[in-house]
Amino acid sequence: MLSAEIVSIGTELLLGQITDTDAPFISRRLSALGIAVYHRTTVGDNRERALATVLQALSRADVVILIGGLGPTMDDLTRDIVADATASPLVRDPALVAHLTQWFAVKNYAITDVILRQADVPTGAIPLPNANGTAPGLFLEKENKIVIALPGPPNELEPMFDAEVLPLLTTRTGTESAVIQSRTVRVVGMGESDAEALIADLMNDANPTVAPYAKLAEVHLRVTSRAATALEADALNAERAAIIRERLGDVVYGEDDTTLENAVVALLKSRRETVAVAESCTGGMLAGRITNVSGSSEVFGVGLVTYANDAKITLLQIPRAVIGGVGAVSPEVAKAMASRVRELSGATYGLSTTGVAGPGGGSDAKPVGLVHIGLSTPTETISVERYFPGGRADVRYRATQAALDLLRRELLKTGMAERV
Amino acid sequence: MLSAEIVSIGTELLLGQITDTDAPFISRRLSALGIAVYHRTTVGDNRERALATVLQALSRADVVILIGGLGPTMDDLTRDIVADATASPLVRDPALVAHLTQWFAVKNYAITDVILRQADVPTGAIPLPNANGTAPGLFLEKENKIVIALPGPPNELEPMFDAEVLPLLTTRTGTESAVIQSRTVRVVGMGESDAEALIADLMNDANPTVAPYAKLAEVHLRVTSRAATALEADALNAERAAIIRERLGDVVYGEDDTTLENAVVALLKSRRETVAVAESCTGGMLAGRITNVSGSSEVFGVGLVTYANDAKITLLQIPRAVIGGVGAVSPEVAKAMASRVRELSGATYGLSTTGVAGPGGGSDAKPVGLVHIGLSTPTETISVERYFPGGRADVRYRATQAALDLLRRELLKTGMAERV
Repeated sequence: MLSAEIVSIGTELLLGQITDTDAPFISRRLSALGIAVYHRTTVGDNRERALATVLQALSRADVVILIGGLGPTMDDLTRDIVADATASPLVRDPALVAHLTQWFAVKNYAITDVILRQADVPTGAIPLPNANGTAPGLFLEKENKIVIALPGPPNELEPMFDAEVLPLLTTRTGTESAVIQSRTVRVVGMGESDAEALIADLMNDANPTVAPYAKLAEVHLRVTSRAATALEADALNAERAAIIRERLGDVVYGEDDTTLENAVVALLKSRRETVAVAESCTGGMLAGRITNVSGSSEVFGVGLVTYANDAKITLLQIPRAVIGGVGAVSPEVAKAMASRVRELSGATYGLSTTGVAGPGGGSDAKPVGLVHIGLSTPTETISVERYFPGGRADVRYRATQAALDLLRRELLKTGMAERV
Repeated sequence: MLSAEIVSIGTELLLGQITDTDAPFISRRLSALGIAVYHRTTVGDNRERALATVLQALSRADVVILIGGLGPTMDDLTRDIVADATASPLVRDPALVAHLTQWFAVKNYAITDVILRQADVPTGAIPLPNANGTAPGLFLEKENKIVIALPGPPNELEPMFDAEVLPLLTTRTGTESAVIQSRTVRVVGMGESDAEALIADLMNDANPTVAPYAKLAEVHLRVTSRAATALEADALNAERAAIIRERLGDVVYGEDDTTLENAVVALLKSRRETVAVAESCTGGMLAGRITNVSGSSEVFGVGLVTYANDAKITLLQIPRAVIGGVGAVSPEVAKAMASRVRELSGATYGLSTTGVAGPGGGSDAKPVGLVHIGLSTPTETISVERYFPGGRADVRYRATQAALDLLRRELLKTGMAERV
């Protein structure tokens, strides 16, 4: 299997003035080609250090991809570095001279010697046409090593890689080429370490690999397989994902880009059911997440943000005495909000949140992070009490996550027929 | 002058599944401290390669900063690598054990041995408190080298660097160290290039520097000053920010962490006024943004998400004939939504959104991205028509941004006394 190393050249990268999106782009392309990347390095516009970095890369990788420093200015060193690192002296390419001359004529710019430096090519290198700029890329194969140099601007680098570099690389990867494919299993309602405990053995496997990533109020398990073809890699991923689903059970709500709100909306659609929400502490975020799903209008029509107690009383007709008695943050009010919004909307389900998002408003009895979530179904109205860690934004988000998951579990629990 | 090298550890980085924003952040901080960065390297979750990379970094830099791999899971190798690279065996820190135990108790999660690995500290290292997660950072000084390990999630790494690492580093940089302070001027309703044109001259200055950053539906101008003391740097920033405000006018809505919803809530509070919202295409996101502001209950009590036409008719009493005639996405309906929610909530202002978020639902007459925003005040009800670019999520967010800015400009325009 071929290995590659990516070297990004540019002082502005080292100063953090630019975030490098080129290297991740190329990394994704290379892994799709089955080319392994073990090191990625960034150096400044310093000839000595850049050269040393490229030589080190050549010593440990089959393919070295240089990003940036191909422009015409003084600090654009990449052309010289490729020449030095591979002992391939620069020669001026007449075709490139003609191309540059014409390009500048069209733009009515004067062509200068500085600009023509972009026509200098290391001996034996193939210049790669640049559809969106003046600086050509370089592809040089020498002594079983491949050196590729690409311009830094993403709008130049990305099309150049796909149009020029990919075809050249695929011919080299040949039979030893493998494809890497990933899929992400998404988990809600179980912590990272609990999830890991259930799949610890799988995490020792080299192919497929399984790696957990803790996200806010959910965990992602990334399964990555290497195989000869994308189809085989996908099959390995599917098989491994199935095992994970079996181990973890219904805390797995979806895969890849499926968000929890996607999963809930899909379940409601499949059941031809609808949900309405009444929100206090989440203040619209729950409705906002549901309606962020394209096509959610099929399953969602009404949301009430009853942030003030008066709104709970006037919009939801929750008796003032109830709120005065047990308080707005209570199972009683959560249930009343859910059942009332269900009634007045005519939705299949009513979902509600009421809690103390903080930073203020907490008490010993009702600390910041306490949230009651209400769910009203055609047969019952329940509420759950949760204590969420984190700041106001985290508590609010966790509350929407818990509310969506409460509904999701209800939708998994019973078929419509059993109930209606 | 001290030199530093940054080593990012994570296979997901090498696969390009994540773009590294931590390294640029740290690069900016280090350059602000006058610490030179000559190399930045990314390696995967591979003990051997990661260790070799750290040893190489130690051989050529005074300070080595490791990012990522500090979590509890098996592929989190950084703690071991720091121990090996510096010959500082891991010892379990009782204080960290206590902290972790308590943190998990709050979350009602069971504490496991896996989690407690995060309490292992290389001999002689200072554990760095993590305000937003469980994994502590590490600061180890040994044989004139400094090794720092930080967690990968930006919301953990950035505050940890500023609160814990900066003070420790500044004492080492000694007289070379100048203090760097930044402040961000936040702009809404003006594009990056228009804003740039008004401050082009300021962007050439070396101290303070001014750098524009285009964000979704707003522009941030980061002013950074270097001075002997934080006070002096702040003064330089304040002076430069004042010039920018004067040049740009009321498109500047706030500074630093002040969001547009923060600014609107503050204006409403200062005027002792309130707002209610009626949302269609933004589906709760507008209320969600307002209520994300701590203390927003003083100025916000009611939000209606009338996503379905029936909800507009039943909850807002918008005549079916109006919706049938001009359609739900129209100035008429935007105005009706704003004035009706204002009436039934008793709020000072009613704010509404109705539009085509896409990807479906567009037509020649009403393309995806068309949004009407309604604002009802004590004296008038108006609507504005906007066409937003981007996907569904962008259109929805831009709509909330435009609605908040429409209200903000109204609040700036007139004093209460003039109107009530």
